Amino acid sequence: MSPSGPRPELPIGVFDSGVGGLTVLRALEAALPAESFVYLGDTARLPYGTKSAASVVRYASQCATALAARGVKALVIACNTAASAALGELAQRYAELPVVGVVEPGARAAVGASRSGRIAVIATEGTVRGGAYVAAITRLRPDATVRGIGGSVFVALAEEGWTEGPIVEAVAHRYLDGVFHGAGAPDALLLGCTHFPVLAGALRRAIPPTVALVDSAATTAQAVAALLAARGLARAPGTPPAPTRFLATDGAERFARVGSIFLGRPLAAADVELVDV
Amino acid sequence: MSPSGPRPELPIGVFDSGVGGLTVLRALEAALPAESFVYLGDTARLPYGTKSAASVVRYASQCATALAARGVKALVIACNTAASAALGELAQRYAELPVVGVVEPGARAAVGASRSGRIAVIATEGTVRGGAYVAAITRLRPDATVRGIGGSVFVALAEEGWTEGPIVEAVAHRYLDGVFHGAGAPDALLLGCTHFPVLAGALRRAIPPTVALVDSAATTAQAVAALLAARGLARAPGTPPAPTRFLATDGAERFARVGSIFLGRPLAAADVELVDV
Repeated sequence: MSPSGPRPELPIGVFDSGVGGLTVLRALEAALPAESFVYLGDTARLPYGTKSAASVVRYASQCATALAARGVKALVIACNTAASAALGELAQRYAELPVVGVVEPGARAAVGASRSGRIAVIATEGTVRGGAYVAAITRLRPDATVRGIGGSVFVALAEEGWTEGPIVEAVAHRYLDGVFHGAGAPDALLLGCTHFPVLAGALRRAIPPTVALVDSAATTAQAVAALLAARGLARAPGTPPAPTRFLATDGAERFARVGSIFLGRPLAAADVELVDV
Repeated sequence: MSPSGPRPELPIGVFDSGVGGLTVLRALEAALPAESFVYLGDTARLPYGTKSAASVVRYASQCATALAARGVKALVIACNTAASAALGELAQRYAELPVVGVVEPGARAAVGASRSGRIAVIATEGTVRGGAYVAAITRLRPDATVRGIGGSVFVALAEEGWTEGPIVEAVAHRYLDGVFHGAGAPDALLLGCTHFPVLAGALRRAIPPTVALVDSAATTAQAVAALLAARGLARAPGTPPAPTRFLATDGAERFARVGSIFLGRPLAAADVELVDV
């Protein structure tokens, strides 16, 4: 953070273990057109989803420090694994900044979409093991029952760009059929990994039509907007933002190529600055 | 390495980015029953396959240093990505030790199995991009033509334990059908990632029966045996080995659980020592 504290003209810092968080950045750019963003993908150490909580907290702290050093007015943890493990630590360390993770907004979206309170969350192994979604959902709705599903193969499919077709549908059926058939099945499926929105079409077809499919990107953007407004940190509507800056800890070419899938617009390797964190 | 240099009674050090190299360890244990082994999986930073070459060289050097500090008489780089990127560097730095990667033995197996000299290699993106297999194969057979195929989804399938069934076969067809049909198709497929031997059954069914399927585990073990013999570092046949030591840089529980798939025998988290490298 800059020595003088957060100011409206500063960008919003967003970080993820890699490129999946670009789905959140995309929602932030759409919801907050006057804001500027700096996005950091910790591609040297991705994926976080299979690492221990202690390692993830350390990595997330280093990402937050790198963004704060560049001058940001808010931090968005656009990685479910990192938000699960490190939100409390970062919110404490950067108490003067709004710090938003994707878990609480995702939980809010799921609770809003479920009638029965039976909610399934598909996420990385690390996120499921950490139990942050169970905690966040039951805080909002104490009688909810939450079923976590580890879905690591989806991460590889999304990064390969195999977002439609028989393979992703077969994988979706393998992960989900046992969950959504039978009495007492959930009526909402939360995408608890920022890679998964690009697979939403195939996931939609693999679950019964009565099940709501929700992700955290839009509700995270709403949470950021509300916090900026509450703290007087929003830029004036209509102010032209600076172009989004992209930082990565490894592999600018791959970041740009795979990142385009998640960002939904072309990215060139020359747009990506390599940094150490 | 111990101050007094390599001695026959020391174990052989084996490292990989994670658990895939356990397929190589398994072949080494089978081929060298009198030898002891210490295996290091750099699970905190896996996978190497999507990282830049510079990062992989740095990680591999740190793994080798950690093993050498424990006293080993040879180093086996049981990770195709690391062997592709870092064998030269490590062989130079540890000139007093036999240093064996999986690339050259894999290339030798493929050249031995191919009649036409048209060889396909399926590997991680990093290995394919690095071109080490093209170089190793054409050194052995200058008229060979090598086709690299990036197969990242296979890594996720292997780690999930989905080693048989319609999903892995569909993925195999997606990666391979375009390669093995038509005139001028390769007549050998080399598994250029240590994760892939556990998928061999499904891969075998996805390619024409006339295509040879080869991996580097057995030929790597042969190369290690030959080098130990040549340098007078082999233990006497029949000497009972010490139990294999397992080191990991993160997540002992996951290492044991997923590692069992690759090692082909049960591993418990208590068998895995967490280390910093």
